[in-house]
Amino acid sequence: MFESAEIGHAIDKDTYDAELPALREALLEAQFELQQQPRFPVIVLINGIEGAGKGETVKLLNEWMDPRLIQVSTFDQQTDEELARPAAWRYWRQLPPKGRMGIFFGNWYSQMLQGRVHGHFKNAVLDQAIDSAENLERMLCDEGALIFKFWFHLSKKQMKARLKALQDDPLRSWRLSPLDWQQSQTYDKFVRYGERVLRRTSRDYAPWYVIEGFDEYYRSLTMGQILLEGLQTALKSKQRPQRHPHAGPLTVSLDNRSLLGSLDMSQRLDKDAYQEQLASEQARLAGLMRDKRMRRHALVTVFEGNDAAGKGGAIRRVAAALDPRQYRLVPIAAPTEEERAQPYLWRFWRHVPPRGKFTVFDRSWYGRVLVERVEGFCSQADWLRAYGEINDFEEQLTRAGVVLVKFWLSIDQDTQLQRFKEREQTPFKRFKITEEDWRNREKWPLYSDAVGDMVDRTSTEIAPWTLVEANDKRFARVKVLRTINDALEAAFERD
Amino acid sequence: MFESAEIGHAIDKDTYDAELPALREALLEAQFELQQQPRFPVIVLINGIEGAGKGETVKLLNEWMDPRLIQVSTFDQQTDEELARPAAWRYWRQLPPKGRMGIFFGNWYSQMLQGRVHGHFKNAVLDQAIDSAENLERMLCDEGALIFKFWFHLSKKQMKARLKALQDDPLRSWRLSPLDWQQSQTYDKFVRYGERVLRRTSRDYAPWYVIEGFDEYYRSLTMGQILLEGLQTALKSKQRPQRHPHAGPLTVSLDNRSLLGSLDMSQRLDKDAYQEQLASEQARLAGLMRDKRMRRHALVTVFEGNDAAGKGGAIRRVAAALDPRQYRLVPIAAPTEEERAQPYLWRFWRHVPPRGKFTVFDRSWYGRVLVERVEGFCSQADWLRAYGEINDFEEQLTRAGVVLVKFWLSIDQDTQLQRFKEREQTPFKRFKITEEDWRNREKWPLYSDAVGDMVDRTSTEIAPWTLVEANDKRFARVKVLRTINDALEAAFERD
Repeated sequence: MFESAEIGHAIDKDTYDAELPALREALLEAQFELQQQPRFPVIVLINGIEGAGKGETVKLLNEWMDPRLIQVSTFDQQTDEELARPAAWRYWRQLPPKGRMGIFFGNWYSQMLQGRVHGHFKNAVLDQAIDSAENLERMLCDEGALIFKFWFHLSKKQMKARLKALQDDPLRSWRLSPLDWQQSQTYDKFVRYGERVLRRTSRDYAPWYVIEGFDEYYRSLTMGQILLEGLQTALKSKQRPQRHPHAGPLTVSLDNRSLLGSLDMSQRLDKDAYQEQLASEQARLAGLMRDKRMRRHALVTVFEGNDAAGKGGAIRRVAAALDPRQYRLVPIAAPTEEERAQPYLWRFWRHVPPRGKFTVFDRSWYGRVLVERVEGFCSQADWLRAYGEINDFEEQLTRAGVVLVKFWLSIDQDTQLQRFKEREQTPFKRFKITEEDWRNREKWPLYSDAVGDMVDRTSTEIAPWTLVEANDKRFARVKVLRTINDALEAAFERD
Repeated sequence: MFESAEIGHAIDKDTYDAELPALREALLEAQFELQQQPRFPVIVLINGIEGAGKGETVKLLNEWMDPRLIQVSTFDQQTDEELARPAAWRYWRQLPPKGRMGIFFGNWYSQMLQGRVHGHFKNAVLDQAIDSAENLERMLCDEGALIFKFWFHLSKKQMKARLKALQDDPLRSWRLSPLDWQQSQTYDKFVRYGERVLRRTSRDYAPWYVIEGFDEYYRSLTMGQILLEGLQTALKSKQRPQRHPHAGPLTVSLDNRSLLGSLDMSQRLDKDAYQEQLASEQARLAGLMRDKRMRRHALVTVFEGNDAAGKGGAIRRVAAALDPRQYRLVPIAAPTEEERAQPYLWRFWRHVPPRGKFTVFDRSWYGRVLVERVEGFCSQADWLRAYGEINDFEEQLTRAGVVLVKFWLSIDQDTQLQRFKEREQTPFKRFKITEEDWRNREKWPLYSDAVGDMVDRTSTEIAPWTLVEANDKRFARVKVLRTINDALEAAFERD
């Protein structure tokens, strides 16, 4: 969920100063148009890590736009009046009317997260709160509201660095609030439950936008850009405004930094180290699969990656460790006729392994948000809702004890070109390279965006993605095996 | 939820025999058309009370239609294979492909209800199961599936009568299953949790249909008719089949019996009894409102009813018992400009009373599914989703301790005519009768249908409707007061 917001996004001041005037003007214009034709209200939810710029962002919006058309509501302690009424009453009374923008700072999400983090209730009650939030938002969107949900994020390292810097600075240390200190204790919990909440409440009509908050220029410009694109799309729509889909790209990367771009692709293993580590990880996997605790679990691995990234080779190294009766390899190509007559996920459900067994998916249900999205094989509405459906699916798997390990094998463009050429020259590999591979290569940036969105939307506390630096096949194979082993061990330990 | 299915619906055999051939032919035709153009699958969920004809209905469907295109799945004990996998796997493997019909007998709803009734888990876990069911159904409908959810119902009396009859009949007593006996013990719980489940999972794209199951002719013909109308609507829709709305009328009353029609409208009170009972109920209300347990509750009453049914008079008798500082009267007319700029329910949320206080709504949020539905002031999609939104709203009220009492004051057409005429002849009442009242009168049957649907969809275990036989104003006023008092007392006792 937060991967793309922990890679050190930043914009320099000159770029910021150069871009800001046009953004402000466009925002003001959109705001004015909305006021003139008040067809829907705009609701902006501000959440995330303390110190990631939530307060500053709200201040900025009031500076940039016409503050007479913005109402900011903070929801801290409930007042006597609020305490005497149903919990949602405080939100209803602050709803902005059509034509206006309401900024909800400290909203239903902050309340449920605080409650869960501090142990006032367990997951089942958290899920009820999530459910209420979903009902409220769906109703608001059915009534035409345009909702933006922002999560301002800091990695744990960034959060600590920030606290230290403030503390050491006598002129600014007063800015530190008790909340800041509290959160430095509870960061891990906050992020874990945050992932649960975001995973379950990100819908196509009200998606979460996670923004890295460390660099204020990047943070502000990104937030402004998302707001602007969403507003313009909604204003343009002539239909009765009902459940505006957020049509903008999910990934907004103003600094051209991306999650995939942040990988250290130079990592390698020499032959000796490879052979030693491979053998030891294979032995470890064989042992874990025979462990009696495996009876309570099943294992599912998903292999996705660039063409020629070495999925097949990695899978063979995994399989080599095992008795063929323990695992099944499921290669995913175009759906069969029988599969086309069923809901999208049906073809994957049928291969869910029973406890004690292991299924390897060579490509997977993520085709929907990768190839089908990029090639236009399904509608935007379809792939947008797929993120939520996939998260639901994976939750069902993990809840039943399935250990789910998802790999994206990443290579850079040069390496791909080199491997394509090698394949063309090697007789027994020639069948592996087709016209289509060359065509896909031209869509490299589109696939990169799709991968970024995919990881941001589906790397969850229950089923995280592992990005594998695969320029060096040896490094990749060992990382894959080790990740699977670590995941199995962690699951056994949690039992 | 179950009100309309406890009034003794029945059809005689001759009518049944006369109607059946056309229904069967039309069903076969629809089934054939679906097979020829397999654009979507049909999923039929069969739930309800034991002995209400669930099994017989499934048999009938196989008789009436082409059984080669129907697959019946029963989900009793999980098999070993199923137990080794996520809970939903058993449903996925039985999904019918496009062009076919799958009948799910003993499905996800039966499982969650059995679990809750027998105390295997509490409401929070039940709500998680409900949530999973909702996700599954939404996904299926997004993928084009047409889902019918049938609840076959028996009143407690009918259930007991049926058991008795079977038991006494040596030729049929073998039909009694252990489930039947068990349910006679758990009927109340089963119905109460059933209401919770139906309330939360009835969506416009997958509504519940509650069918009274005592009379087999009525039950079979009604089920067939609903199925046919839903199928025909979906087949006609040329759009990409996504979330077919169920366009048929929610109320299918083949025997012309309706909930309102089942009221005993001859109930009256003579003047002496009235004055005595009125005074005693008013004193009771005054006492309850001053009771210190009232500090943990608020009271909300909703008055709806036919024009000239006596809402105003009843409200005055309630108010007369109280200190004006304790209650507020909120008459609901056309929304103000400010209210039109907000979501539909906003105008009601703003009047939610704090604990200790009482708000009387003279007409209410039910306008959406009554006048706005009948007069076409909102779209069908709007009023169809309103049932769910209203149930959510009322759940939030009651969860916060609000005691919610909803009245439909019912008079017959003769009484209304007589009262209209009196009003026209009484100078100080003349303002109360307008052209519009006469126009509304012509839409009597449309309003009756709307009221029937309203009660069926929003009379819930947390906020039941009270139908008030109001041909006699005295009887109505006392019934209103007594119902409020009983509700308050029950709430105090539950504390």
